[in-house]
Amino acid sequence: MNRDRCLALDAADPLRAFKDEFVLPKGVVYLVGNSLGALPRRTAERVRQTVEDEWGKELVGGWNHSGWYAQPLTAGDRLAPLIGAGPGQVVVGNTTSIAVYQAVAAALRLRQDRRVIVSDVRNFPTDHYMIQGLAGLLGDYEVRDVSEGGFEDAAVVLLAEVDYRTGARLDVPSITSQVQAAGALMVWDVCHSVGAMEVDVSQADFAVGCTYKYLNAGPGAPAFLYVNPRHHAAAENVLSGWNGHAEPFAFEPGYRPAEGVRRFAVGTPHVLSFAALEAALDVWERVPMDAVRAKSIALTSLFVDLVGDALELASPADPAARGSQVSYLHPDGYPVMRALIDRGVHGDFRAPDVLRFGFAPLYIGYADVHDAATTLLEVLDKGLWREERYARRLAVT
Amino acid sequence: MNRDRCLALDAADPLRAFKDEFVLPKGVVYLVGNSLGALPRRTAERVRQTVEDEWGKELVGGWNHSGWYAQPLTAGDRLAPLIGAGPGQVVVGNTTSIAVYQAVAAALRLRQDRRVIVSDVRNFPTDHYMIQGLAGLLGDYEVRDVSEGGFEDAAVVLLAEVDYRTGARLDVPSITSQVQAAGALMVWDVCHSVGAMEVDVSQADFAVGCTYKYLNAGPGAPAFLYVNPRHHAAAENVLSGWNGHAEPFAFEPGYRPAEGVRRFAVGTPHVLSFAALEAALDVWERVPMDAVRAKSIALTSLFVDLVGDALELASPADPAARGSQVSYLHPDGYPVMRALIDRGVHGDFRAPDVLRFGFAPLYIGYADVHDAATTLLEVLDKGLWREERYARRLAVT
Repeated sequence: MNRDRCLALDAADPLRAFKDEFVLPKGVVYLVGNSLGALPRRTAERVRQTVEDEWGKELVGGWNHSGWYAQPLTAGDRLAPLIGAGPGQVVVGNTTSIAVYQAVAAALRLRQDRRVIVSDVRNFPTDHYMIQGLAGLLGDYEVRDVSEGGFEDAAVVLLAEVDYRTGARLDVPSITSQVQAAGALMVWDVCHSVGAMEVDVSQADFAVGCTYKYLNAGPGAPAFLYVNPRHHAAAENVLSGWNGHAEPFAFEPGYRPAEGVRRFAVGTPHVLSFAALEAALDVWERVPMDAVRAKSIALTSLFVDLVGDALELASPADPAARGSQVSYLHPDGYPVMRALIDRGVHGDFRAPDVLRFGFAPLYIGYADVHDAATTLLEVLDKGLWREERYARRLAVT
Repeated sequence: MNRDRCLALDAADPLRAFKDEFVLPKGVVYLVGNSLGALPRRTAERVRQTVEDEWGKELVGGWNHSGWYAQPLTAGDRLAPLIGAGPGQVVVGNTTSIAVYQAVAAALRLRQDRRVIVSDVRNFPTDHYMIQGLAGLLGDYEVRDVSEGGFEDAAVVLLAEVDYRTGARLDVPSITSQVQAAGALMVWDVCHSVGAMEVDVSQADFAVGCTYKYLNAGPGAPAFLYVNPRHHAAAENVLSGWNGHAEPFAFEPGYRPAEGVRRFAVGTPHVLSFAALEAALDVWERVPMDAVRAKSIALTSLFVDLVGDALELASPADPAARGSQVSYLHPDGYPVMRALIDRGVHGDFRAPDVLRFGFAPLYIGYADVHDAATTLLEVLDKGLWREERYARRLAVT
């Protein structure tokens, strides 16, 4: 596969036009969209409107006139199709950490006869950390790793559809059935799959995810929480803030949960961060997700083929079993990545030894993959990463 | 006090120059800065920089290069002087609701021998609601209203320095001493005082507040949490997200709290919302807070004098006993406020019968107060609010 053939594939790519909708620095192949998505061109103007036209001109009236108050639900309804959910099932706001806490706590309240929380030590750590904080507060819960066995005594199981480190993808329908057949509630973390493939959490009990990776909603963009409608009447939001109240503006002394998923809203929405999410969703409404997955598989497979055995693959070799990222192991992964970034190919490094490359199909093309692989091979072949200047540690989120 | 005299006071106002730093719609007297502060002129450019120059050009590198990762603490250090705190004592992020949960839960963990949480039914409801959710989760706690008596068996007392409805101001040093002498921990909510007066929570155990009211950081701007240094070693953040971990980028399976107040960070900061907070703090760094309080007292007193007995005052008559807002009671408060807003004077209404007028000393002047009072008196004298078009209910946050 030479570069000309890659350029021909780019020319025939049904998603090709989307690349022009993003701001991408010249001379950079940005393979970190799995960590922070690129800036959509329309976002700057949308955020400016919120600051100058909404806040600046409507002031407090913006809560009604500009729809700020409704954002957790209106953004949720727009986002729902990306995770196989329907209207009134997704609430947006806060962070993934908070959403994990809400989902797991709600699940525990629904299954008070069980005292085990199952998680996966390979999950992104904030999922564990939030569970540990919750279990520590409650005092009589066991947090068990999924590798330790069955779900028969589990109240809730929290797993990530795609592993943040290796990109390995779990079989959501099958695991959901298995967990629920054992009487446990299933919570999916789709941070690393939403926007990279067709996600369907509609059989799960809860799901959480972020919008700043493949969804391109910007640094620290709001997270989302899906609650299966079968739980809308009984599920409790232990973070029972005023925005989840049935009548927030009645200013009643007692908490009374809103009907439906609205009860999982907490405090005042971060309006400026929502503005960028809205701009990102404007793009997603036009994206055929089957084409995204097809291109994602083509891009990651091409990269794996081109890199060959120059590095140890940490991701599944079967493209159906991975998300839209490819990871490799290298004991000196950090300086290798620094040397690569210096040459315009941006991936990231995850301790202790993982090199990650994310392929966002909306703005990464086949020639980009070719250039990235060629540069990586050169860095490795020539040992460029051994230069002193690449030795310094630097955290990259 | 006629309008010419008010114009003379404006001309002599030491804070006069600050008004030019805000975007205020023409023909409007904006007396809702106690709910949502006005837009600082510098904010649009600061937010544009974050979107276009930081996210757009640095992409994921912005977490380090643009200081996004450090924002919860750097913003906290800049905000600290506004509440009498020092560096390393304030963490910014999330919402007031979340900060209340963190503070009260941490206090309960520190006083596990007691099972009573004292709050004030007059507080802004989200404070109660969050406590109710926490107490409901824990199961064996009593939530008691402060009107019901002493603190001898209380684990924690949560009160607001300034009442959101009436503007009544509590004596922070005296109550803090009283609560702590009884062996309880004191949590102050300073949402309605920070930026309106010199606030000092340095003797409290915890304090929470928002930045979108008098601080002018924009709709849904991040909240803050103060933790007294004497608790830094022992206090637990039950919302133990990865940003509060000692080494977030070590991706360890177990939660290990960071040293100091950083452990109260939770998830990924909402970077765009932080940008607006940074612009707001640029203004505050130049503001003499004693002049703010002096002007606040002068403005609220002038308004009370001009309105006279045309309305029933709900705020304390003694200016030392109130914040920077004046509230009145009227059984038809909602249509009265609508009629007033129609004439360019923006206050707000809080169910069931409270008219609120907030006076932000940075951008409200004496002539504004004169115009507002004159218009209010006209609406009342002529019964303009009785027109049918003002009858419709509309929630205003």
